[in-house]
This record gives sequence, structure tokens and C-alpha cells, in this order.
Amino acid sequence: MKRFDALKQSAAKQGLACDFLIFNPYNIAYFTGFSGATALLIPEQGENTLFVGGVNFEQAKNEAKGLTVNLLKRGENIIEKIVKQAPAKKYAVDALTFESWRILAKAVGGEEKLEPAGSLMLKLRSVKDKEEIGLIRDACKLASEGMQVASELIRPGSKEKEVAAEVEYAMRKKGSDGTSFDTIIASGASSAYPHGSCSSRTIREGELVVVDLGANFGFYRSDMTRTFAAGKPYEKQRKVYETVKAAHQKAFETIKPGVQAQEVDAAARRTIEAAGFGDFFVHNLGHGVGLEIHEAPVLSPDSKDTLAEGNVVTDEPGIYIPGYGGVRIEDTVLITAAGAEKLTVGPYILACTS
Amino acid sequence: MKRFDALKQSAAKQGLACDFLIFNPYNIAYFTGFSGATALLIPEQGENTLFVGGVNFEQAKNEAKGLTVNLLKRGENIIEKIVKQAPAKKYAVDALTFESWRILAKAVGGEEKLEPAGSLMLKLRSVKDKEEIGLIRDACKLASEGMQVASELIRPGSKEKEVAAEVEYAMRKKGSDGTSFDTIIASGASSAYPHGSCSSRTIREGELVVVDLGANFGFYRSDMTRTFAAGKPYEKQRKVYETVKAAHQKAFETIKPGVQAQEVDAAARRTIEAAGFGDFFVHNLGHGVGLEIHEAPVLSPDSKDTLAEGNVVTDEPGIYIPGYGGVRIEDTVLITAAGAEKLTVGPYILACTS
Repeated sequence: MKRFDALKQSAAKQGLACDFLIFNPYNIAYFTGFSGATALLIPEQGENTLFVGGVNFEQAKNEAKGLTVNLLKRGENIIEKIVKQAPAKKYAVDALTFESWRILAKAVGGEEKLEPAGSLMLKLRSVKDKEEIGLIRDACKLASEGMQVASELIRPGSKEKEVAAEVEYAMRKKGSDGTSFDTIIASGASSAYPHGSCSSRTIREGELVVVDLGANFGFYRSDMTRTFAAGKPYEKQRKVYETVKAAHQKAFETIKPGVQAQEVDAAARRTIEAAGFGDFFVHNLGHGVGLEIHEAPVLSPDSKDTLAEGNVVTDEPGIYIPGYGGVRIEDTVLITAAGAEKLTVGPYILACTS
Repeated sequence: MKRFDALKQSAAKQGLACDFLIFNPYNIAYFTGFSGATALLIPEQGENTLFVGGVNFEQAKNEAKGLTVNLLKRGENIIEKIVKQAPAKKYAVDALTFESWRILAKAVGGEEKLEPAGSLMLKLRSVKDKEEIGLIRDACKLASEGMQVASELIRPGSKEKEVAAEVEYAMRKKGSDGTSFDTIIASGASSAYPHGSCSSRTIREGELVVVDLGANFGFYRSDMTRTFAAGKPYEKQRKVYETVKAAHQKAFETIKPGVQAQEVDAAARRTIEAAGFGDFFVHNLGHGVGLEIHEAPVLSPDSKDTLAEGNVVTDEPGIYIPGYGGVRIEDTVLITAAGAEKLTVGPYILACTS
């Protein structure tokens, strides 16, 4: 119930006196440990209620503890049902399509009775509690084990998809609930695409290979990247790699509670610019990780976020040279009272081991 | 370019004279073969334009053929940028959060200049072309191979997650790009949850085990379910199984172009009701499958959809008895000129082979 209390405290701080209507499945999972509901009503007064269709009703009753579980019958309109059951002065709403928003606005008698609450929810979720940190720690351990397997398999002649198969299998065998996102094994020219995917391509001698992977564990996620050279690394590959590694380290040293997220991004970006690769760092330094793979805070040049104890963020600078290849190094990092702790762990070695 | 033409024909039929603004990544992938863009502008006149952030710009330029690729610079507002570049009388918009919808409505001078186009897009995507059918066929073949592996591993003493690990590994080794959704291996009481997940639980003698899995291939998905008894099936298990199997077959025989989707659902539902299990079939009969795992058409008692040649849908009746267990049988089915073809293939056998 702590998370419900924290929501009400946040709302009070913003002077929001209203019922909360939660539709985003990640937000629903955050409060209830169950993701298969259509909506969660958190009223100012009265019982928190989960609205669940017939398909998930029995499971919700058993898995969502301490809540009223209300069956949404075939043909019942969720919005009309909620508004009738809990007629509030004002509703804070986390996420809706524009079609549903318009229906809701009409049902409550005007948009002025609705308050967007998506950012408040993201802010709340950005500070992880002990239980969440435990699960993310486990997810990060699985990612680190997956990366170890990748490092043993990346070599000239390996196929991208085959490496992905082995990595995902290893993480599954250790207890992963699946991948946090589609595993990236991007070799050669496609290593220069930050979201380069994973094909049946064979890795060739002299190429850079970006491996970006994550595991799910108990609803929580991890995110980790290493880059390897297939064969003996060239001088230019080494230079790019050392620059990214230094940027990653500089950023890591900057991370602590109270620091502006944009300062952390700047620490990495300055390092890459100083080495002459500024034009090739084409994305943000990092993002929060939790129930979703991308959540608050954002570590970017234009971020307005301030880092806080309990945030879990990625530190992932990269240099991407079109037509040549790319290097990214990434860890998932917990922000502690003392500073920062890497939750994903693995060596930073460009040369592949085999 | 056929898909762009089909969109314009659909729009013309509805009397929609406007530019299309596409934000949903699946819709963007449908038109461009590239999913990493922020938006796609399809104007009535002029060039189709993909708006892409720095992180995916180089990849978009190489992978999205026959389109203008426009770099979305840091700090640029996508909505302002589009409205400035292509000032239209009216825009059709497929998907937006309510926050972005309000910003867009303000930027164009009022909601009356916007037209929701989500359902038009779903309708368009529900009729698959040859290329799409080929990819779904491959994804279904992978699922069938995964199910074969599952059928060999389900037995008393196996762990749910271990079976999932082997199934996903087998599909990956055969060329899968990953799973269509989180693999379900739900044994014992959790087999009575249609979305029962996959835990470290050990399967026990006498239990029902629902296996629901799918593979991705070239952006397209598959969906397949079989149910097994761990050990010699009991009489009641056999009765439930045979009822679901008969419902699945009845529905399959009903599927052809021009049939109301709700009639197909009814064919299965009547069979289950006649056997006395009507209260335990707690979900729709099926859904479309394509770029997303759930898309149009819907096969449900209240569906308004009519089946058409080129639709790909699931046929998945189930009976779920709380506290006892559940049975579901599912195939992915292509609607052909002649009727229907099962794209996922595997025996319907309750007894596990080992």
C-alpha cells in the first residue's frame, strides 16, 4: 500500500484533489502486481478498484491482493462504468488514446474536469523501492551472464541470429522471464545504426559488433551493451572504443543524487567531442529503466530531470560512423545515497576472446 | 507503393480528402518497412515523408526506400514541424496520446481539422498481401516447430520456464526474430487463467498444461496453442479437451470470405454451451494477426467485422474451470477465396508423448 500512499502524497504536493484513473498497464502493474486489467481506479476516498474483463477476472482475483476486483462484462463501457461508480469532482488520468479521452471528457462533462497525470506517474515510478531494486538487480545479473556468453561467441564466421539464440537461451536457463527488448547483435555497417537489429548475417573479420541485450525478471528489466571487434582490432577501432569507454566512465563518475541529468550527458558528450567524434554521438546518454525499458529520468542535453537516490538509469554513450561501424558501451546504474553503483557487470574489452 | 495507393482509395471511399499523419510504429512499418521513425506524412499531393530522430536517421535513409527522410533535430517539435511543412485543410491521424492530440489540435487551429484514422488503418492492414502472407506463413511454421518441441518436453517433473527456454531456443535456431509475445506455459491451476504465464513451477502428474506461443519473422507474427495432460489424461480432462477440439473445428469450418466474424465465434460458443461448459469460455474466439499479435478483425459475440479473403485470424476456443484447470486449442488461419487454411500445423493430442 506504500505506493498508493506515495501517489497521494505526490498529488497533494501538486494541489491535486481528485480520483486517479489509471489505464497504462505498466502503471497498473506498479500498484497491483497484476498487468492484465483494463483500468485501476484510485479514489480520494474509498476502495481502490481494478476493472478486469472476463478473460483475466479469475487471475486478477487471485493475484491482485488488497483491492476490489470488478468484472467488466461484455458490452459494458469501462468509462461509463467508472464515472457512474465513482462520480468525482475531478479525475487525474495517466494515459489514453485521443478517442477514449474524448469519450471520457464527454462522460464527465468537459475536459476541465480531467487532469493529465502521466508525468506524475513516471516521476513516482522513477524512484525505485527496495523490492524493485532487488528485481532489477536480478534482471541485470541475467543480462551480465548473457553478455558473457555473447563475448565468447562473437568471432568472424558467427551469425548474428545464432549469437542471439545462445544469449537468450542462456538467460532463460538462468531464470529470465524473456528479453527486455529485441536483442541487438549488429555487425559491420549496421553496427553504425544505434538500433541496428539482428539478422542472419555472418560476422566478418575486421568488423565491429554491437551487442545490446536485456532480461526481464518479475516484471522488471535490464539493459546492457558491449562492443567487440571480430578479429584483431584496428587502430581506428581502438581509438573509437577508448573514447566511448572514457565517456562512459566520465558520465558514471558524475552520477549522484542532486545532479542535473543533462550534466551527466554533458560529461560524456564533452569527452567524445574533445576526441573529434562529436557529430557521431547521435543519441541521448541514457534513460531510466524499470517496468519499461525506457522510462524517467532522461539523460539528454535538454533534460529537465534531477537525479535522485533510487533512480535506475543507463549510461550508454556511443560513436556511430556511417558506412564504417559503431561502438556503444552501456551499463544499468543504480543511484545510491553515496553516488552510483553499476548493476550490470562485465569487462570493457574490444578484442573478442575467441 | 501499392499500400499507399490502397490507403488513398480507402480514404476516397470514405470521402476523406486530407493528408495522413501516421504515428503508430506498426502503421509506419506497414508503409515503409522501417519502424524507427517518429512520424510518417502521407500528403494528398506531394512526397511521402518520414520524420526520424538523429538516433535512427542513417538507418532510415538506407532502409526506407522511395521516401523522403527528414531529420528531426534535437529540440524540434514534430507536430509544429509537420504542420509548417504541409499545411493541409484537414489531417487524418492514426494514433496519438491525448496530450499530443491537444497540441496538434491547437497547432492546426481546432479539432474539427482532425479526423481519427485508426480504424481505417486497421481495416487496411487486416487484408494481407502476398508478401505479408509469406512472412506470416514463415512465422507460423516456426511456431509449429516450437510446439513440436513443447509437446516432447511437457511431462510430470518438467519446469514451465525450462520448457519455454527450449521452445524459444528451437524457434530462434530455425530463424525466428524472437517471440510474438511472452510464451505461456501454464500448468495446474494457472492453466485455468487464459493469460496464465510461465514460472519456475514444476509440472505435476495429472495436471493440464496450456502452451501458447508465437514467433516473429520479418516484422510479422504467429500465434498457436495446444494443451497437454501431464500423465495419463483423466476422463474429465478428456471431455473438456474433446469439447474444445470440436468447437475449434466447428469454428474453422465456418470461416470463409463474407461470413460475419460473430457467426464464427457463435459456432464455437454453441458447441461449448451444448456440452455444459458455456460459463467457462471467458474470452473471444479469436483476433487478427499480422504486424501486431492482436489486430483486426475481431472474432467475438459482439464483433461488427465481416471476414474477407486475405484476413489472418486465430481460432482459439477455451474452457477454463477455476481451481481445476483449462484447455485451449488455437491455430492461426488464413482466409482464402475457397475458405480457410491453417497456417500453424500440429496434432490435437491431449496425452503428452513422453
